[in-house]
Amino acid sequence: MSADEQQIRELVATWMSATEAGDVDGVLALMADDVVFLVPGQPPFGKQKFAEMSRPAPGAPKPQFKGHSEIQEIQVLGDWAFMRSRLVVEVIPPGGGKTIKRAGHTFSVLRKSAGRWQLARDANLLTTVDP
Amino acid sequence: MSADEQQIRELVATWMSATEAGDVDGVLALMADDVVFLVPGQPPFGKQKFAEMSRPAPGAPKPQFKGHSEIQEIQVLGDWAFMRSRLVVEVIPPGGGKTIKRAGHTFSVLRKSAGRWQLARDANLLTTVDP
Repeated sequence: MSADEQQIRELVATWMSATEAGDVDGVLALMADDVVFLVPGQPPFGKQKFAEMSRPAPGAPKPQFKGHSEIQEIQVLGDWAFMRSRLVVEVIPPGGGKTIKRAGHTFSVLRKSAGRWQLARDANLLTTVDP
Repeated sequence: MSADEQQIRELVATWMSATEAGDVDGVLALMADDVVFLVPGQPPFGKQKFAEMSRPAPGAPKPQFKGHSEIQEIQVLGDWAFMRSRLVVEVIPPGGGKTIKRAGHTFSVLRKSAGRWQLARDANLLTTVDP
């Protein structure tokens, strides 16, 4: 495995652990400032909206996240790379509501800037499934 | 605009016109043999399944397609490229059933092989909308 592929795999692992820890700033540091997120049924959005959606209102209880990512393909093309993953995410609402489980694939482009890989484009095709 | 970007734009235009003409072989010629399609709620699939889904049963009436693609980004990375588009597709069932309209984004990777660009990976995030 190339050093670049290893660094991309570490980025994914750090993304999952930071998300599970509720470390929004940690996740934001893993994406480029001009990142574009694509999800079904919504216009494309960027880093600021990602941050707004990720931060609970001050004082509000936080949901819990559990995620598992299985990387199915990484192609490194110089300072760019693309990656295809299967992702399962469980969100446990605060106060013990019903767990929401989402599963499916993501298709992402990453870019190396100043020696560091960051998420640059991300298409998220997850759908809600039975927990 | 680079020659590569121009060729990719022509590929998209040919894809749309071949789809509208019901020319399945014409569409299949625009994708690599190892193409991977990602859609929400289904496992990834390849060229053979794309062909099966595209060909009506022998003798069956064909649906009509109308599509419009607006390319929002093309990045050429040597013999690879990625592309982000907004796509609107209308399918008119044979016999005059209700038109099905789907809209949203696609995120694709293309590869140049023997001087010719082909679709290599495609994430389709379209959802059904009111016609």
